[in-house]
Amino acid sequence: MSVTAAKGFTASGIAAGIKENGNPDLALVVNNGPRLAAAGVFTSNRVKAAPVLWSEQVLKGGQVSAVVLNSGGANACTGPKGFQDTHATAEKAAAVLDLDAGEVAVASTGLIGVLLPMDKLLAGVETAAAQLGPHGGEKAAIAIKTTDTVHKTSVRAGDGWTVGGMAKGAGMLAPGLATMLVVLTTDADVDTGTLDSALRAATRTTFDRVDSDGCMSTNDTVLLLASGASEVTPDRAEFAEAVRAVCDDLGQQLIRDAEGASKDIKVEVVGAATEEDAVEVGRSIARNNLLKCAIHGEDPNWGRVLSAIGTTGAAFEPDQLNVAINGVWVCKNGGVGEDRELVDMRYREVHIVADLAAGAATATIWTNDLTADYVHENSAYSS
Amino acid sequence: MSVTAAKGFTASGIAAGIKENGNPDLALVVNNGPRLAAAGVFTSNRVKAAPVLWSEQVLKGGQVSAVVLNSGGANACTGPKGFQDTHATAEKAAAVLDLDAGEVAVASTGLIGVLLPMDKLLAGVETAAAQLGPHGGEKAAIAIKTTDTVHKTSVRAGDGWTVGGMAKGAGMLAPGLATMLVVLTTDADVDTGTLDSALRAATRTTFDRVDSDGCMSTNDTVLLLASGASEVTPDRAEFAEAVRAVCDDLGQQLIRDAEGASKDIKVEVVGAATEEDAVEVGRSIARNNLLKCAIHGEDPNWGRVLSAIGTTGAAFEPDQLNVAINGVWVCKNGGVGEDRELVDMRYREVHIVADLAAGAATATIWTNDLTADYVHENSAYSS
Repeated sequence: MSVTAAKGFTASGIAAGIKENGNPDLALVVNNGPRLAAAGVFTSNRVKAAPVLWSEQVLKGGQVSAVVLNSGGANACTGPKGFQDTHATAEKAAAVLDLDAGEVAVASTGLIGVLLPMDKLLAGVETAAAQLGPHGGEKAAIAIKTTDTVHKTSVRAGDGWTVGGMAKGAGMLAPGLATMLVVLTTDADVDTGTLDSALRAATRTTFDRVDSDGCMSTNDTVLLLASGASEVTPDRAEFAEAVRAVCDDLGQQLIRDAEGASKDIKVEVVGAATEEDAVEVGRSIARNNLLKCAIHGEDPNWGRVLSAIGTTGAAFEPDQLNVAINGVWVCKNGGVGEDRELVDMRYREVHIVADLAAGAATATIWTNDLTADYVHENSAYSS
Repeated sequence: MSVTAAKGFTASGIAAGIKENGNPDLALVVNNGPRLAAAGVFTSNRVKAAPVLWSEQVLKGGQVSAVVLNSGGANACTGPKGFQDTHATAEKAAAVLDLDAGEVAVASTGLIGVLLPMDKLLAGVETAAAQLGPHGGEKAAIAIKTTDTVHKTSVRAGDGWTVGGMAKGAGMLAPGLATMLVVLTTDADVDTGTLDSALRAATRTTFDRVDSDGCMSTNDTVLLLASGASEVTPDRAEFAEAVRAVCDDLGQQLIRDAEGASKDIKVEVVGAATEEDAVEVGRSIARNNLLKCAIHGEDPNWGRVLSAIGTTGAAFEPDQLNVAINGVWVCKNGGVGEDRELVDMRYREVHIVADLAAGAATATIWTNDLTADYVHENSAYSS
């Protein structure tokens, strides 16, 4: 289903030879209209890849007719030549598809600091354009994989309209978006303002709260394109909820496929004075390497949760903190609570609840355990 | 040498049975004067262990006559009972040694959330008092080890006076001090104000810039005690430098013995607009799990350095950043620099220089690589 679930879109995914192993590495998504409305959210890393700098400019126009995505190289920290390469990619797609290059977004993922093999990439754009089709969404989702073990797609259907999308991302998942490339499409007949507010609201509580390893990418890109092909203009709230649901689903898929992980950890902060406090505390817990190791070892080490909470500026009193792990309140009032032997940690999902006892605000951050496999995946070769 | 290198101090280290494996776990350090001047620096974690809360109060008086230290239990997150236990420990030492309990500092390290076996600990204080001696510093240093593979001591001699000390710490090394217990002693005849300013200046650029795994302890304690027994009052700057040198040496020993580490990484930030910027950037690089994995794999992955710099608020322009790894400027002006194949990473020490090209301030943060052994040490059992 992916990006071609919604009417008005065609897509393709091919092997252009950017990856040395011959796997698919180039995807093309085209909006055939009648609308070309688009919204985008990008990495908040100040070191931004060339395609991010380019696509940010494209999105300012509010119209996107096509997106070229490649894996096999991030085109980040590649200087003026890297930016020229991104520009040339957009120009090539525009020429082949008879579009305006200023409406062609580009996204890249892979190793930082290496120039892309432009001969292969530009030839690949021609090939991908020739293979565009209304069922090409799956192939596009496969072509953007890097260390992903599975491709990720999601769809939500409204009353006569649809929101669908694809995502890649497995490591470097972090704040201000994770290392992810995401393209969402809809055939709802909505304007850029509606798209933008729906996308920003959705990413704030989904992708932005997926924090696998605390590392922020140079290339994160989330695009939402609307074709208007359904000729239906949904209720704004209903549309926003569909976008949120697709983002949430894709975010969960990212966590479940995170590099080397053996546990998916839901860190739910409750009783916070403000949502900001809840997010700060959730991130601090989610990024604590010692806790992530303990969870890997199926050790309900609530002391490491308290230690992580204690590093934040959130409103709380240390002797009022409560922590539950998989439903057992192992810490009550800042001290020993129920018997930690009661905690069953055999399953992949681990649920930590941190109660700050300081208010009514909540937030949930998703993370993974820290494993020897994570170390291996990120030390055995450059990525 | 350790805490008994300076005149006027006796110490001991014994196995009180707090650790189930029978290893030494209780240390006693006594200042026999004539002075009892003292300064202390404690964890900035808001979740503070009982002994930290107690010792902070003791230090407010500016006099410390003895320090009781135990491994085998952190006495953190143990509520009012935990605080009573710390109090009882100080009272016991005071009774046995004929001191004022309000001048007895206590420090603990080990698992969070477990009450100490007070019968064993109090009996141990009696045994330790009976074994106090002017050469007991080594045994004291051994008794405070947890996952440390070696005990850590250091000494600097001035003109007629000495500064010496001991430290423990191997994981949870982080900001606002690492998980460390450190006791420094001197026979210099200096007042509390001199001790305090020397200690704060020293820890700010030594222990506080040792950041092995980004996790902040509930128990960090660094004490500096002066006996005045040398009857020499050193030049303030000379004394401060000796304290700094001992702290620096102990900090280096902590990094070299960090849990599971195979590389010691010196992150030197230069060209920063301010020292604060340099420290922020240094910490961001030092905490980047992906980079720490790459270093483990002897991969000079400078893209991960730039990615870490980009998450900070420091003054810099992305296209002016330079990065050297082991002397090779692999990144110049935000892009590809010298050939990364030239970087020799076979040795334990790795030196990363990040040049922000924004000023003249510098800072150095020490960290370690992220290894499967770290994961194992922190997941295989509770600690």
